[in-house]
Amino acid sequence: MPAHRSQSEDIATGFARRHIGPSPQDIKGMLRVVGADSLEALVDQTLPAAIRQPTPLHLGQPLTETEALAHMADLASRNEVFTSLIGQGYSGTILPAVIQRNILENPAWYTAYTPYQPEISQGRLEALFNYQTMICDLTGLDVANASLLDEATAAAEAMALAERSAHKKTKAFFVDREVHPQTLAVLRTRAEPLGWTLIVGDPVHDLQKADVFGALIQYPGSSGAVRDPRPMIAALRAKGGLAIIAADLLALTLLASPGDLGADIAIGSAQRFGVPMGYGGPHAAFMAVRDSLKRALPGRLVGQSIDVHGQPAYRLALQTREQHIRREKATSNICTAQVLLAVIAAMYAVYHGPDGLSEIARRVHRRTAVLAAGLRKLGLPPHNESFFDTLTVEVGARQSEIVARALAERINLRIGDGTLGIALDETTTPATVEAVWRAFGGALNYREVEPEMRDTLHPALKRTSSFLTQEVFQAYRSETELLRYMRKLSDRDLALDRAMIPLGSCTMKLNATTEMMPLTWPAFASLHPFAPREQAAGYHALFAKLEEWLADITGYDAVSLQPNSGAQGEYAGMLAIRHYHAARGEAHRKVCLIPSSAHGTNPASASMAGMDVVVVACNNRGDVDVEDLRAKAEQHSADLAAVMITYPSTHGVFEEHIREICDIVHGHGGQVYLDGANLNAQVGLARPGEYGADVSHLNLHKTFCIPHGGGGPGMGPIGVRAHLKPYLPGHLVLDGTDEQRHGGAVAAAPFGSASILTISYIYILMMGGEGLRRATEVAILNANYIAAKLDPHFPVLYRNERGRVAHECIVDPRALKNSAGVTVDDIAKRLIDYGFHAPTMSFPVPGTLMIEPTESESKAEIDRFCDAMIAIRHEIAEIETGRWSVEASPLRHAPHTVHDIAEEVWKRAYTRHEGCFPAGTTRTDKYWCPVGRIDNVYGDRNLVCSCPPIEDYALAAE
Amino acid sequence: MPAHRSQSEDIATGFARRHIGPSPQDIKGMLRVVGADSLEALVDQTLPAAIRQPTPLHLGQPLTETEALAHMADLASRNEVFTSLIGQGYSGTILPAVIQRNILENPAWYTAYTPYQPEISQGRLEALFNYQTMICDLTGLDVANASLLDEATAAAEAMALAERSAHKKTKAFFVDREVHPQTLAVLRTRAEPLGWTLIVGDPVHDLQKADVFGALIQYPGSSGAVRDPRPMIAALRAKGGLAIIAADLLALTLLASPGDLGADIAIGSAQRFGVPMGYGGPHAAFMAVRDSLKRALPGRLVGQSIDVHGQPAYRLALQTREQHIRREKATSNICTAQVLLAVIAAMYAVYHGPDGLSEIARRVHRRTAVLAAGLRKLGLPPHNESFFDTLTVEVGARQSEIVARALAERINLRIGDGTLGIALDETTTPATVEAVWRAFGGALNYREVEPEMRDTLHPALKRTSSFLTQEVFQAYRSETELLRYMRKLSDRDLALDRAMIPLGSCTMKLNATTEMMPLTWPAFASLHPFAPREQAAGYHALFAKLEEWLADITGYDAVSLQPNSGAQGEYAGMLAIRHYHAARGEAHRKVCLIPSSAHGTNPASASMAGMDVVVVACNNRGDVDVEDLRAKAEQHSADLAAVMITYPSTHGVFEEHIREICDIVHGHGGQVYLDGANLNAQVGLARPGEYGADVSHLNLHKTFCIPHGGGGPGMGPIGVRAHLKPYLPGHLVLDGTDEQRHGGAVAAAPFGSASILTISYIYILMMGGEGLRRATEVAILNANYIAAKLDPHFPVLYRNERGRVAHECIVDPRALKNSAGVTVDDIAKRLIDYGFHAPTMSFPVPGTLMIEPTESESKAEIDRFCDAMIAIRHEIAEIETGRWSVEASPLRHAPHTVHDIAEEVWKRAYTRHEGCFPAGTTRTDKYWCPVGRIDNVYGDRNLVCSCPPIEDYALAAE
Repeated sequence: MPAHRSQSEDIATGFARRHIGPSPQDIKGMLRVVGADSLEALVDQTLPAAIRQPTPLHLGQPLTETEALAHMADLASRNEVFTSLIGQGYSGTILPAVIQRNILENPAWYTAYTPYQPEISQGRLEALFNYQTMICDLTGLDVANASLLDEATAAAEAMALAERSAHKKTKAFFVDREVHPQTLAVLRTRAEPLGWTLIVGDPVHDLQKADVFGALIQYPGSSGAVRDPRPMIAALRAKGGLAIIAADLLALTLLASPGDLGADIAIGSAQRFGVPMGYGGPHAAFMAVRDSLKRALPGRLVGQSIDVHGQPAYRLALQTREQHIRREKATSNICTAQVLLAVIAAMYAVYHGPDGLSEIARRVHRRTAVLAAGLRKLGLPPHNESFFDTLTVEVGARQSEIVARALAERINLRIGDGTLGIALDETTTPATVEAVWRAFGGALNYREVEPEMRDTLHPALKRTSSFLTQEVFQAYRSETELLRYMRKLSDRDLALDRAMIPLGSCTMKLNATTEMMPLTWPAFASLHPFAPREQAAGYHALFAKLEEWLADITGYDAVSLQPNSGAQGEYAGMLAIRHYHAARGEAHRKVCLIPSSAHGTNPASASMAGMDVVVVACNNRGDVDVEDLRAKAEQHSADLAAVMITYPSTHGVFEEHIREICDIVHGHGGQVYLDGANLNAQVGLARPGEYGADVSHLNLHKTFCIPHGGGGPGMGPIGVRAHLKPYLPGHLVLDGTDEQRHGGAVAAAPFGSASILTISYIYILMMGGEGLRRATEVAILNANYIAAKLDPHFPVLYRNERGRVAHECIVDPRALKNSAGVTVDDIAKRLIDYGFHAPTMSFPVPGTLMIEPTESESKAEIDRFCDAMIAIRHEIAEIETGRWSVEASPLRHAPHTVHDIAEEVWKRAYTRHEGCFPAGTTRTDKYWCPVGRIDNVYGDRNLVCSCPPIEDYALAAE
Repeated sequence: MPAHRSQSEDIATGFARRHIGPSPQDIKGMLRVVGADSLEALVDQTLPAAIRQPTPLHLGQPLTETEALAHMADLASRNEVFTSLIGQGYSGTILPAVIQRNILENPAWYTAYTPYQPEISQGRLEALFNYQTMICDLTGLDVANASLLDEATAAAEAMALAERSAHKKTKAFFVDREVHPQTLAVLRTRAEPLGWTLIVGDPVHDLQKADVFGALIQYPGSSGAVRDPRPMIAALRAKGGLAIIAADLLALTLLASPGDLGADIAIGSAQRFGVPMGYGGPHAAFMAVRDSLKRALPGRLVGQSIDVHGQPAYRLALQTREQHIRREKATSNICTAQVLLAVIAAMYAVYHGPDGLSEIARRVHRRTAVLAAGLRKLGLPPHNESFFDTLTVEVGARQSEIVARALAERINLRIGDGTLGIALDETTTPATVEAVWRAFGGALNYREVEPEMRDTLHPALKRTSSFLTQEVFQAYRSETELLRYMRKLSDRDLALDRAMIPLGSCTMKLNATTEMMPLTWPAFASLHPFAPREQAAGYHALFAKLEEWLADITGYDAVSLQPNSGAQGEYAGMLAIRHYHAARGEAHRKVCLIPSSAHGTNPASASMAGMDVVVVACNNRGDVDVEDLRAKAEQHSADLAAVMITYPSTHGVFEEHIREICDIVHGHGGQVYLDGANLNAQVGLARPGEYGADVSHLNLHKTFCIPHGGGGPGMGPIGVRAHLKPYLPGHLVLDGTDEQRHGGAVAAAPFGSASILTISYIYILMMGGEGLRRATEVAILNANYIAAKLDPHFPVLYRNERGRVAHECIVDPRALKNSAGVTVDDIAKRLIDYGFHAPTMSFPVPGTLMIEPTESESKAEIDRFCDAMIAIRHEIAEIETGRWSVEASPLRHAPHTVHDIAEEVWKRAYTRHEGCFPAGTTRTDKYWCPVGRIDNVYGDRNLVCSCPPIEDYALAAE
């Protein structure tokens, strides 16, 4: 740890100076504009005195970037990368270097936002479209979404989808005993609050007699067994249940697809398509469904539509499902996808093509067959006669001896009840197979055993349908071609590496390079989540420290790192409250108060936790109506479970009465869930755990620098006060350890998407307590600066009593709808012509724009943005004064593309220059959005969510 | 090493498949087009049977990318990264992560070509302009070039510049005894063949009495001493000599600049501005001169000019100096710059700004002062009272004991004659200083010693002039801002990550990501070139293997890795011939035969090696006129030193008579220097060392995948037959080892730019012998395919007797100058509109285009290029048929920029679409070149080579 520096020196010259946009000089000037004497004075005017934290953060001295990387290298050296043959849904895989460098390590990809503004997101939308095409083709189903969080939560989503769609009275669901244990655990968690029963059994025998709304079958099974699911599906279908197959993507290149086998839904993980295991994540799960189920499909769905020029263009389809999920009756709160990882998996398939993927699968299978032959020679024949890549061997009392020998070979096996599992993968070499044999007691030679292998792929299950015949999976077989394809796609998108993304509530701050470096180091990337804990000492040291820091920042007593999205964190938090009440014999407490301004995930999460949502009104300031809250709390006093409140509010204001609200709810026996989406406005200034909240989730991808990745990954750890600690999410692999918890598992891996926790860890490490506080202060300053500059042009909707906004502000152009017919969409699309991503549109207040600059944007960039907004206001004035009609205005024609400027004959009411290079923008270095405004209605009416196979074109041509 | 794969499997599925563009299927189709039955048949028609190598390459089985990285990790683990306080021109430095990832590891920067086509190179030209500005400001001189190879060769170039410019009779040059020893060694090498005498001494006493054309003074001195150079310069000036100061860039932030002190020339290294030491390189050296010397400045110079729209635009200034260097009388053969590294150094300065740089310098100086105070306490006062960051201590007999203790602390010191040197740097911490004290025998505490330090900076030498006041050095202080600036610049450029760069002779093949990964690993990046050899065991294993492989590929007996550019390699090769003759008592052999088609560096290198060039004619096929060669060899038989010949020829043809040429020259006692620029056409097919050559250089950045980096780094190892081995370049640090050689040093570091040797090493490792041969075959196929497709439109100028071109071809549009007035420039600039970099223009034949596709370009991309060329030919036909005049044609207006398409009123003879989106190009994904055609004459007439300080603008505004 460094010496000889003071903290203020660090802010002036250390990493904090690089993270925070405005210079000390700029800060002075901006304070003058907002009318505050100092940052401290501004903060005093912004936060209620009652919530200010009494003590500073205890995070130690910040490290320089160099010191931080040295520290991470030290942690990395405490992890040990064994060859993990544990399987269970996680496989070794080879991430092609060209994809690693040019996607995973490329800010053009990882700093991009969720593609809600499709015109500036065509690159990643195409990549996701490829992903959906790949999933549809491999699963043999009609529609696939753009990824889910992990296989276990995908299974839970599939169960909920089956329940919604099967329209059966029964609330029972069948689970194959060959399902991965972590999947079963998440299903149990999910089913319990909803009152659903899980029947776990052997589908071959037990399914026929069960009356269920659906069943989940693992294919191949967790033990490695490859069974024919057709009879099981037939039995299920006979009673109207939906068949869900959890499939292995690589196996599907050789095995009959779920669709061909009759399944309604397929789920699974795309991890082994090039995404490092990362000690649990992140990676992309998938879900595909028959056409009839497509409108019930959870998660994001990329569809093809057309733009204003009639050219094909991608967009998120059926988008109304997402930000407006069925609140009170929701069985899903899914928001985040795993875009960056889905993109990687899709590119892996693009690079290998169908032949390459099949070849990898055949090689893995061949090696497994040789392994099996060797085990037979050693007198330990695998349990499963039919397999793809995984074997289970009965070893009885020899288990510990074999495991010890395997560890000596630096190999991890899956330890069962008297059995050992061995799962091979793309990285397995003959030397690995020989080492496994040695562990099992025999010194065999791979080449000598090879001739004795038997191909055990069930002939009736061999894949016959073709897949990935589309051009995109054929054209990029050389590194040069793939590199150019990836560059072309990324150039179509506007990400943080080119311009400010002023999204309210989404906190698009700097994702510093140093923060992004360690996660691709093998010592962090290559660990299996169920590897023996002693091989992950570096990770666990990091977890412990990160939990301690997050507890200090939030004022809570304990933290769980498991939830791998913000919504997942909400859900885990509400479950903790549920369990807490139940443990006190008050299971009847089920009423959850939620203000009307809440994000849609709040009621959905509450509902999933078995609670009944009661909506609390807001007043005309946008604040919670405390009297309404008091009345409702009293009304439901006996059954009050909780309040869910976002603070500072989704309106971007620190409400004065937060302590009072907490007291009211506590007074009626309820718990306070404080949504941490806006924690970045408080870090270092106020601690939710200190001012009355019992539990919060923390969006690490907002406050703590995990990049948005184009729409995921996210991470949503939760903090709780001591009384809730026992009810934090548990996990099988933690049972029997100090970290055993009694809340159910909410994610597949015990520490969620562990590898990206490194990002938040390094961020805190390099900022230190003072740096973090300064970041919060500057975030507040930047927001108030924008409010001051824009208010004369677009009124700021909500402020606190002292006229301050928090870290974001809502500006209100609704009057312009009346005066000029201009919609919020027009403004958003016009901003693209000025080189900006739009602010958040119509959330939380329809027709308004919510703007959050974050601390990382410099004064120069914020000024550029404000100037663009003001220039747009002047353009609107031209409509008001009658120069243009709104239909003929550059706003309505926005965004302007190369197709516009290239028009031979210009017939518009404005000049080419006014359209394409509006005030303050330059011709050189202009970002050209690849498509014009996209027709959303057309896309939803003509839903196309995957690329048709090449044969279809051939047929059409005939 | 892998087992269970055949070599042909590897070509089909391994790395070679990713490196080689055309698929096996494509290859079949292309063979049909060129009219060959197989690759083998094509090769038989292309290369003379007489030179075909009898045995395949012995390079072992190729490794997969994963295996190769594991192998590199193993080599890395055999290097040990100690803290090197050796100094001597190499310092520890911190490469900001954001620069590392987004420049050094970003293909948009590293795959770019030399900015000869300025319109598509504005990004790196701006970065180099920043570099020049930085050098001018820090050195206080008027004009700086865009970098040189290393400090030692820069010193040699400065000496030659002084000799050319001083116009003095004397051929003596004074060298400060405080000059770094490796610099002195290179000066000695350079001076000897030119007949110049070096006087080494103490300039304070010895300079006055010397009559010299110039003097080189190190500032601060190699020992660390900071002396006032003004009296020395005065003494020198009195007799008309030019004063050269070798300066430390970081020290210049605190010390009076060379310009202020009266120097004419400043040179040095920019390594410590963020560029890793890399066990010797690459990094950028600099040279700056007074205005009066600017037209004699060697190397590349970026200047500001204007484009056709009158907008400012960058370009290489005074470019005629470069490809057409004064052949026979040259005292410089410099070609390559170190663009990528100069860009990094400039960005480092942009990121830190003048305040940040000064702060770093002050911190380093302060720590050195504390170190000195501690050493005084320990009774070992430093030799030099005045210093910046380096101390020299007399230790006498205690030397070995102190060194041993330092090594135990993992610290390297500079070992002198009874002295030890200690050089601190940006990475030095108080803990390092304390460890040094322990090595010197005392356990002192940094904080306790700190108050006793003395500021030893000579008051008269304190810097008073400001520097880096320009906007660019102020604006990018946050990571977000810098990231966007770097992205903006890279987007202006067209590099290999977007399109084919079909440059003849420059071989723009794939620089694979895997090849680029290890060089930034600390175990390769952070080693000091003079670190104890045992700390670099991994490097030396790599060198040995690479030398062995290159010897196998070329058929030579020994290889030197020292030359750090192709031209340097030529020079080293010619020196070896010189020494060989001299050692045999035939020092009078000085005639070097060079065909008229040779690259300008050939005669320059020969001249620098003290030879007299005799030009040999070429016949109308472009081949060497064997009879003329025979006649000249006979005429100069007694004095014949060598022939320099490029093979296959610069005309892109395998001449039939190469063996005969070698025999003729050998018959007259001469040696054969075979220029290896085109070795990539022979690898695996023919070995120069087997068919008659004695020595060649190998452009690793052409044949062996080192990226061009926007115009450097390069590497030019040489291979020699056994009789020349003793005369390979030597180096001080190799003296006394097995690797001692008797040729002089040609570069500062013993193994040149060692860190990038990893690239070529991995390439060979992953290709294997068969893969390399296949690459050569496909390179030949691709070239012949282009020749077949383009010949009907642009005649192919030269072929061999069987109608085949080698790996490149010259197409001849000269007739179109007559028929349509179209110049080669028009075609080159018009190609930009089609999204391509131009082929090589007017080399080797004026008015023609030389095209080399390399093996890495796919059939699809080559077709796209050919289609573009053919479409351009159709456009020219429109001139011929009178649709347009050439002046009104889209060719003359090319390249078309956003400024063109944005014209409100279109008055051209062609449509907007025809101009901006010519045949086959799309609107979406178009590369928009940022400036129109640049006015070269204007730029050379109004030479602006650095950004004026901000005060100048203020003055102008007054």
